[in-house]
Amino acid sequence: MKLMRFGDRYGAKTPCILDADGTPRDVSSIVGDFGPRTMSPELLAKLKAADLSALPTVDTAGKRIAPPVAQPFNIWCVGLNYSDHAEEAGMAIPDEPILFNKSSATYCGPNDNLLYSPKMTKLDWEVELGIIIGKPTLGIAKEQAMDHVAGFVLVNDVSERAWQLERGGQWVKGKSFPNFCPTGPWLVSPDEFEDVQNLNLWLDVNGQRMQSGSTAKMIFDVETIVSYMSEFCQLEPGDLICTGTPPGVGAGMTPQTWLQVGDTCELGADGLGTQRQDVVALADRTQ
Amino acid sequence: MKLMRFGDRYGAKTPCILDADGTPRDVSSIVGDFGPRTMSPELLAKLKAADLSALPTVDTAGKRIAPPVAQPFNIWCVGLNYSDHAEEAGMAIPDEPILFNKSSATYCGPNDNLLYSPKMTKLDWEVELGIIIGKPTLGIAKEQAMDHVAGFVLVNDVSERAWQLERGGQWVKGKSFPNFCPTGPWLVSPDEFEDVQNLNLWLDVNGQRMQSGSTAKMIFDVETIVSYMSEFCQLEPGDLICTGTPPGVGAGMTPQTWLQVGDTCELGADGLGTQRQDVVALADRTQ
Repeated sequence: MKLMRFGDRYGAKTPCILDADGTPRDVSSIVGDFGPRTMSPELLAKLKAADLSALPTVDTAGKRIAPPVAQPFNIWCVGLNYSDHAEEAGMAIPDEPILFNKSSATYCGPNDNLLYSPKMTKLDWEVELGIIIGKPTLGIAKEQAMDHVAGFVLVNDVSERAWQLERGGQWVKGKSFPNFCPTGPWLVSPDEFEDVQNLNLWLDVNGQRMQSGSTAKMIFDVETIVSYMSEFCQLEPGDLICTGTPPGVGAGMTPQTWLQVGDTCELGADGLGTQRQDVVALADRTQ
Repeated sequence: MKLMRFGDRYGAKTPCILDADGTPRDVSSIVGDFGPRTMSPELLAKLKAADLSALPTVDTAGKRIAPPVAQPFNIWCVGLNYSDHAEEAGMAIPDEPILFNKSSATYCGPNDNLLYSPKMTKLDWEVELGIIIGKPTLGIAKEQAMDHVAGFVLVNDVSERAWQLERGGQWVKGKSFPNFCPTGPWLVSPDEFEDVQNLNLWLDVNGQRMQSGSTAKMIFDVETIVSYMSEFCQLEPGDLICTGTPPGVGAGMTPQTWLQVGDTCELGADGLGTQRQDVVALADRTQ
């Protein structure tokens, strides 16, 4: 099952399921919106059982693709979770998952613009597999983890490296500018994947391939991450966990390479669709 | 103006203003709830103009005090922001504010129990002045900062030091367990303070004074924090910023001292009311 939403940032959204032809079917007769307050195993079961042919199709022409679930209360990230990216960053392979957060206000649609503040100097990209949590999750075993996952999404964990690493501690400072978390286009339920630990991910800047990797290289897999995190916090429905990035970020290149106004990021992953963001000056913000 | 809410964690809340006698007056005829989606300068002005004598009083007997604003999308913290606490922690005075996050799911009422997980070993307390943001805040000058503040709250920034410092990086891991952020009892609007940078704060464990400090010792004051943060992220209505703790935390004592099941924290600050939490086993969680 693939879930999708259409609508402007501050307006009502149209929640949809994609049918077998990939056509969005409006499910607002079943649920007002997909979000932290509505996401549950019961809702997902009801959506899965719906007769899609009986639901209205959606005219998507000119409509903004919103993130597939409404703004979460938490955006979590796992740092240095690809063995080949840790190597590129010159960091040791972590013994246990490194956790940090992005501001929840970074959350945006998959094709919204990246915003360039005049104070930025080292704007970087990170294609990632994202997990959306489906029910409250505290103290669970690895074997239970997948029951707590509503689905997977494509994420660009956008980062300002100078703010992250050179401004006095804790990475969240460089991970939290508006639109630093393009998410979507779809949420894909776990049953659609033969093996979520064997997905290719890629990211291009201005048409040139920068990142190319596979979730097979994740040091801590999805089940380990969800179970591990549930020891330290209660994950909530709608929470997004960004699971780390493969090699090829700007900070790992020689010379280091940063996004500038006018650049374009395109990214994708097997089964998770694609995103495209243009880098624009903050003053030109529209969404 | 003092705002307060009553009600269980998962039920509807009764939003109130305290009248001149300190009696809660039900304002649900003006706004359904105080929260991230309703908080605005317009709402605060409307509440301030309300004729309290015409509003119903609330029977608070046996009712839980909820946090004074509904769950925020972000809980921010400023690390090592008291010169005397930085000294106690053996850390250098920061050149610029250290930012980190707590999970938004830590948010709870001022008198809810602290939960002790069997995996905890170093549970610690931190009395703090909290800022609640009143409107979207991005790229603002220090002089504008107070216009973006809805009010102030008392917070206990509860921490698990082993998880924060000994488990592989980034403090959020030790700051995010459920009920690690008792908030309230009231939100107090900025105009009620003669000088918010001259408030006494204190915290007792089992009746013994542990922390005693003054916001006069903050390295970065409220206006500096709000303006500084707005360079790196967009603060949203309802967001909570915990501004750092004075000396006297368990980690700073010789020998180090940690909370155990059966212990009680009581804390307070000038004008912000008091809190009381009992430490109970996680298995005995009720709210």
